[in-house]
Amino acid sequence: MSKQSLSIVNPADAGEACCAPLVREPLGETEAAELAPLFKALADPVRLRLLSLIACHEGGEACVCDLTAAFDVTAPTISHHLKVLKQAGLIDSERRGTWVYYWLNPGVLDRLAATLGPRATAASAS
Amino acid sequence: MSKQSLSIVNPADAGEACCAPLVREPLGETEAAELAPLFKALADPVRLRLLSLIACHEGGEACVCDLTAAFDVTAPTISHHLKVLKQAGLIDSERRGTWVYYWLNPGVLDRLAATLGPRATAASAS
Repeated sequence: MSKQSLSIVNPADAGEACCAPLVREPLGETEAAELAPLFKALADPVRLRLLSLIACHEGGEACVCDLTAAFDVTAPTISHHLKVLKQAGLIDSERRGTWVYYWLNPGVLDRLAATLGPRATAASAS
Repeated sequence: MSKQSLSIVNPADAGEACCAPLVREPLGETEAAELAPLFKALADPVRLRLLSLIACHEGGEACVCDLTAAFDVTAPTISHHLKVLKQAGLIDSERRGTWVYYWLNPGVLDRLAATLGPRATAASAS
């Protein structure tokens, strides 16, 4: 059976905010390969909470000293999870004196959200 | 350092569609534990494309016979990935005669999208 025989909903025919891109047209190999490592980085409860704590922290950034108290895991484990989040491109960091500070790369979460669900921007513009 | 010393943005103070729940308030342990396995199921390019193909297929459902042609992997591998997606609760299935048909559990993707990005519903209602 060829790819052509699959019945695909044309994105142009879909309502503005009715469907996620994932639901409107088949995800390409390249995009799937780009997205999978981002979801893998999110596939851990500690990393999800770390990401959220960093995002919620005053000024949108946090140092490791702000994060470790919320978890029952060791500081090296927190550091490992931060490294995984950074390597995936979800967060970025900078050393200032003694501490390394972390912040979210906000565009990345928006991209993931927009892939999975209806676009908030399109809905608010209608 | 206690949890109390973390500076948290009050969700009530945040703009309606400005931020994802993840960014408005720290993700709880329970929610993080519920979300992580869903992201883990999405953390594979073949599974992402399978999910998308099922969602885009006519009538919002597809049988394995509709899916295998799009991939360079074997039918048992496709079946394995479908099982992972189903066990995570992202898709559901039903046998009808020879074939098993699969469809998306749409609420699950919406929940993930709403966790990561601004809510489309809130934005359109404003």
